[in-house]
Amino acid sequence: MEKKSKPTILVVNDDGITAPGIKALIDVMMELGRVVVVAPDSPQSGMGHAITIGKPLRLDKVDIYEGVEMYRCSGTPVDCVKLAVNSVFKGNKPDLCVSGINHGLNNSINVLYSGTMSAAVEGAIEGIPSIGFSLDDFTLQADFSHCIKYVKEIATQVLEHGLPPATLLNVNFPNTAHIKGIKICRQANAKWAEEFDERIDPHKRPYYWLTGVFQLNDAGEDTDVWALMHDYVSVVPVQFDMTAHYAIPVLNGWSFSV
Amino acid sequence: MEKKSKPTILVVNDDGITAPGIKALIDVMMELGRVVVVAPDSPQSGMGHAITIGKPLRLDKVDIYEGVEMYRCSGTPVDCVKLAVNSVFKGNKPDLCVSGINHGLNNSINVLYSGTMSAAVEGAIEGIPSIGFSLDDFTLQADFSHCIKYVKEIATQVLEHGLPPATLLNVNFPNTAHIKGIKICRQANAKWAEEFDERIDPHKRPYYWLTGVFQLNDAGEDTDVWALMHDYVSVVPVQFDMTAHYAIPVLNGWSFSV
Repeated sequence: MEKKSKPTILVVNDDGITAPGIKALIDVMMELGRVVVVAPDSPQSGMGHAITIGKPLRLDKVDIYEGVEMYRCSGTPVDCVKLAVNSVFKGNKPDLCVSGINHGLNNSINVLYSGTMSAAVEGAIEGIPSIGFSLDDFTLQADFSHCIKYVKEIATQVLEHGLPPATLLNVNFPNTAHIKGIKICRQANAKWAEEFDERIDPHKRPYYWLTGVFQLNDAGEDTDVWALMHDYVSVVPVQFDMTAHYAIPVLNGWSFSV
Repeated sequence: MEKKSKPTILVVNDDGITAPGIKALIDVMMELGRVVVVAPDSPQSGMGHAITIGKPLRLDKVDIYEGVEMYRCSGTPVDCVKLAVNSVFKGNKPDLCVSGINHGLNNSINVLYSGTMSAAVEGAIEGIPSIGFSLDDFTLQADFSHCIKYVKEIATQVLEHGLPPATLLNVNFPNTAHIKGIKICRQANAKWAEEFDERIDPHKRPYYWLTGVFQLNDAGEDTDVWALMHDYVSVVPVQFDMTAHYAIPVLNGWSFSV
């Protein structure tokens, strides 16, 4: 594959354009190419693959970090990627789309709820090699320093090799300075066991806070959960064909009476 | 499988609790079992798998259709399913979760953006046999009458057979009274070619409306797009393991220098 001397890199996230995690990611990407940031103007965690269709979007050029072309967007992480491709790059697609570094893990089932990962999925739908990065620390004080060399190495390899068609990467970091290495994994089978914290407001009406416990239903040692528990960086290749191909013959065995 | 005489059915949607499509679905489900509705209090199209984590949720019992237990929720379609399972059913899971009937298609790549389908995905994550239904007419005047017998037949079959683990159904209807039958399909390879309609507000600032053209990149005759174009009901089995298993050996062939 012919490599341009200086790749163009779209940086996006879901924690918002002023989050420490995106600053860490921008700093690494500046070493690899020309960086353009299009990120939400406010936190968009848990937005999944939401897009904004009932109201218009704002996109404003902002001057936050010296030497970086940056735009803040009023929409979701997926909106940011769509606006970046269409209104910033104007069809001249970037060579790489990186999302994060997220404050909090996006391993296992979290890939579905995560705005960070959905932005990377949208990048891949647009045909751009895309990677989502997340760290196991949801606080604003998260220390990303131990992730940096892995972010750089994985992004470099993706720029070099490309990715299989319609495939992106979900990269998660354990919150330790003693990382053992990188493991290629599958998404662990897990879910959130929700508890809604019911409270009563000053007007005597109930309201609910979503909260929950991560429930692992997978003893495999080839999963992202296993890798992270054992201090490895987990790399899961992700696709956006949701077809359960194995179920097609099962359903074809049903006889419909209509 | 032992069948209870009267199954309990959770009905949800993304167009909001007063949309005509959910009324059509409620009416069919009333013929099959005990119906409980938990649906958004306002339209939530395009919300994908978004969940509400930064603010609390409201859940109010409402009396809209006679003889139906109904709750309106201030959150996303996925929030509705989570609240239904945890605060309405309180862990005593329903036998079926149906979502829709959506005003507008959710075939192909739309499965990712669709609140209707994400609600069904969440039902499946909870271990409930789940189906999303959508009609190729996004107007509020959509006529669902030709879908009814298919909705009933497919739901009946799912109640009878169950579904393979971690699998749900994405059912789409063509907008014709001359349906040829049901086809089991895969998700077509397609994307939205976006155009942002840029306008200037009264204060001279630009804003953007998301709009786009559906771009089919798939000549297959086994896809949902093909089925719908040829007046069949498309049924795609859907999974929520996003792992691109085929890419694991590719990535294991890379040598990381960290």
